[in-house]
Amino acid sequence: MRQFVEALEELQGRLLEMAGLVESAIHLSVRSVAERDEALAREVLKNEARVNHMEIEIDDCAVRLLALYQPMARDLRFLTAAIKINSDLERMGDLAVNIVERSLSLMRQPAINPLIDMPQLARLVESMVHRSLDSFVKRDAGLAREVLLSDDAVDDLRDAIFQELISFMQADPSTITRALDLMSIARNLERIADHATNIAEDVLFLVQGVDVRHHAEIQ
Amino acid sequence: MRQFVEALEELQGRLLEMAGLVESAIHLSVRSVAERDEALAREVLKNEARVNHMEIEIDDCAVRLLALYQPMARDLRFLTAAIKINSDLERMGDLAVNIVERSLSLMRQPAINPLIDMPQLARLVESMVHRSLDSFVKRDAGLAREVLLSDDAVDDLRDAIFQELISFMQADPSTITRALDLMSIARNLERIADHATNIAEDVLFLVQGVDVRHHAEIQ
Repeated sequence: MRQFVEALEELQGRLLEMAGLVESAIHLSVRSVAERDEALAREVLKNEARVNHMEIEIDDCAVRLLALYQPMARDLRFLTAAIKINSDLERMGDLAVNIVERSLSLMRQPAINPLIDMPQLARLVESMVHRSLDSFVKRDAGLAREVLLSDDAVDDLRDAIFQELISFMQADPSTITRALDLMSIARNLERIADHATNIAEDVLFLVQGVDVRHHAEIQ
Repeated sequence: MRQFVEALEELQGRLLEMAGLVESAIHLSVRSVAERDEALAREVLKNEARVNHMEIEIDDCAVRLLALYQPMARDLRFLTAAIKINSDLERMGDLAVNIVERSLSLMRQPAINPLIDMPQLARLVESMVHRSLDSFVKRDAGLAREVLLSDDAVDDLRDAIFQELISFMQADPSTITRALDLMSIARNLERIADHATNIAEDVLFLVQGVDVRHHAEIQ
């Protein structure tokens, strides 16, 4: 049994290492947009293979532990949560790569008027990601619930960004391709926030055994 | 043990029922776009709650079977595949709802020139979804591999649609909001195809015990 406890700790350690990589990828992707910095963008692309590799390792490890130790109750919930969080992290990594591709495309075009709401959206999404992972580390249901409550603010910021970009495009069609790149970045940030929400839901299930998917009331 | 075999069969039956609902939602969403038919769109919205409800039930059932019977090897692979396929189906249902929302928005605007590539993209994506689910039912690795090979064709069609829509927007800015709705529909179809690919990968893992994620060679 001590072996099993150690194996679970090792699994959690690897998941947090992966989380660190993905958080850093998101942060670099967002900075590469704001600073038009190709080197930052390239760094994200360079780390993608490692994230993908870690996902497979962690998934294999969790499934092996399920088969080997056939855990019950809380340990079973931990392993199923680990499998889901791992998959969410990998997708967040993919979305950071999408952002970087649009960022590189933007660097090849003249700069557009800065958007007020984009840095705010990026900050909010990064904070949701960080809090969702922190709630996992600390098994903190309160923190996980906070993440779920940020969802509406993300939608509002995304809508404001879209409205502003549509008015740019209508006023000057030469901005269309740049505006589409920026819309894609906002959309990818929104999807990263969705995955942070998934992680927070998994944490609530892990801590409380409560299923909060599909907005089955959040108090 | 006979109880366990029956429970697995029941789980597979429920998963296929959910698959049927999601396939029908995708089909109706696509038709509502082509035919500008609000009744079809409303039907998709009406069924959304049922899909969400089924996802939770199936997930609970699979996790309970894991805990209760602590299966090994192939049965363990089946249960983990069922958990993943269930989650992919639920997201596909969400994406069909996204398509329907854009479809309703398009109905409130004048019709745009028909796009040649959109019906072709829709047909390809629907066929990928169907084949991925069929490969699951028949445990057919060959069929699953076919789905993985359709990915490039989806990308090409999506790119062609985007190019056409960008040229519409540049030529006539009054088409911008309609073109954005159509881009969103193409993007949602592409994401449905991604989930069909995930399912095909899970089937290969289930049938062969081979992990083909991240393009670790497909023969």
